[in-house]
Amino acid sequence: MPPSAPSRPEALAADVRAGSRRALAKAITLVESTRADHQRAAQRLLELLLPAVLAVDPSSALSGGSILGDKTRMPRLAAAPEAFIRPSPSAGSLGGVTRRTREALLVCEAAGYDAVLVETVGVGQSEFAVASMVDFFLVLMLAGAGDELQGIKKGILELADALAINKADGENVRPAEQAAAQYRSALRLFRHTSPGWDPPVVTVSALEGRGMDEVWSIIADHRARLGASGELERKRREQQRAWFWTMIDDGLKGHFLARDDVRRLLPEMETAVASARLTPTEAARRLLALLDEGGERGGRAAVRSRRARSA
Amino acid sequence: MPPSAPSRPEALAADVRAGSRRALAKAITLVESTRADHQRAAQRLLELLLPAVLAVDPSSALSGGSILGDKTRMPRLAAAPEAFIRPSPSAGSLGGVTRRTREALLVCEAAGYDAVLVETVGVGQSEFAVASMVDFFLVLMLAGAGDELQGIKKGILELADALAINKADGENVRPAEQAAAQYRSALRLFRHTSPGWDPPVVTVSALEGRGMDEVWSIIADHRARLGASGELERKRREQQRAWFWTMIDDGLKGHFLARDDVRRLLPEMETAVASARLTPTEAARRLLALLDEGGERGGRAAVRSRRARSA
Repeated sequence: MPPSAPSRPEALAADVRAGSRRALAKAITLVESTRADHQRAAQRLLELLLPAVLAVDPSSALSGGSILGDKTRMPRLAAAPEAFIRPSPSAGSLGGVTRRTREALLVCEAAGYDAVLVETVGVGQSEFAVASMVDFFLVLMLAGAGDELQGIKKGILELADALAINKADGENVRPAEQAAAQYRSALRLFRHTSPGWDPPVVTVSALEGRGMDEVWSIIADHRARLGASGELERKRREQQRAWFWTMIDDGLKGHFLARDDVRRLLPEMETAVASARLTPTEAARRLLALLDEGGERGGRAAVRSRRARSA
Repeated sequence: MPPSAPSRPEALAADVRAGSRRALAKAITLVESTRADHQRAAQRLLELLLPAVLAVDPSSALSGGSILGDKTRMPRLAAAPEAFIRPSPSAGSLGGVTRRTREALLVCEAAGYDAVLVETVGVGQSEFAVASMVDFFLVLMLAGAGDELQGIKKGILELADALAINKADGENVRPAEQAAAQYRSALRLFRHTSPGWDPPVVTVSALEGRGMDEVWSIIADHRARLGASGELERKRREQQRAWFWTMIDDGLKGHFLARDDVRRLLPEMETAVASARLTPTEAARRLLALLDEGGERGGRAAVRSRRARSA
């Protein structure tokens, strides 16, 4: 629920930096609000927090599936003063969710958390969105689910910095190890995106607490190696740059689709493309031509109203 | 080289449809030209050819690497009256190359060719661009190159409708078969994008002409199955729709970046994002705000010049 009277961004930023959990929760709520005045306050808050993010040792933001979903460990973690757990609304467009998640992550970094975990819902394009904002992408699979061999979507393979097969306990240990071995051989057949890093495959048991240290040391190793080579810094800069251009593209499209003349012509052009009466190139050209005409018309109207007012 | 005086689109379209190889070459040159008057003629030509594309049984357009690069077979193919070979310039932006390739492909379809092969250069994002315009994406690898086990970029795996390991001849036969077996097991670990199609892995020898029939029957089988289920039709419609929106996005961005006020502010905003003084959201917002201010200013200038002319 958005706060009805948000604290002043300056005070809120100071409280977040001082480690107040209440301020952190409030800040994330502000970032996630869709109200225009909240959004303005949120952007001011983020501006104030940005230097704090740079000042702290950059935190490991990583992503995985179902870590947070492990209900048996959740209450223990939630009670720890070192941890802050926050479910985020996943409603709205992917772009909107992505922006809110990125900015909530930034607030957590500013609050001084050493590690920020982002859990994906595992559907559609959400993995790609989350991979575009974290340092390390962990893919979690389940052993004994009967379908671990069909477990990974091909597109996800490109994102994975490590694979962990969970529920490797009891009679699942053997099949989990076998699956891990198969994934290890399979991964050798493909080139990874990050130079100098071969994604490891491990088995873990959240129930028995086995393998967690290994996963964490893999993440630490990744960070140390990519940090030393400058690759991590490069990756983060590229993520920021990509986010910036995504925001520009989304904004331009939103602006364009809000025009009356575009709305009028669009259905006709979409039908013409679908029925192959026009090439997409020509249909797009006709729509884009409205930019030149329409801008002028809008301008003239504005001049007229000003003249009317001064008369 | 662009023709200095292009034929009238109507005459050219008729000649292409009648099967003239000269007209086909001329039409592709026109499509590939960057001159504004040629581009207008090209769009008119494509409009005239579109119904021809729908009238013929949709041709199998497929893509692979190094089929066309096989110099020993090239002269034989080039001499055949049933084949038309055309190297396309790959210079310019990926978007530009993509548009030209799509439209050249369309011209070939209109000319009645049953199969159109598009070869990628195999670097950067070109595979993704080509995969977005063909019915079938064939990944070709080389046996005996010593690095066939590192041969596939992970992202490509998602695109592949089949894998063929070439140069499986002489002492390469055994390692090629072994590599194929490894890829077959590996592919079983991942989910494919097309429902109802598991990408096969085969070995071929272009030198001995072995395995070519098998590759072709795989393509025919893919077509028959996806055609019967309606998946092929759905895929083509989705490709057209995606192309249309890509053209819109590219056009909007080009238009935006051509504005003087955007050009003035952009470097400052890019630096602010890179040095983390502003969030990408805020930097993008400030740039997008120019759309509202600037449209009005441009309009006023246009009104003034009209008034000056009428005075």
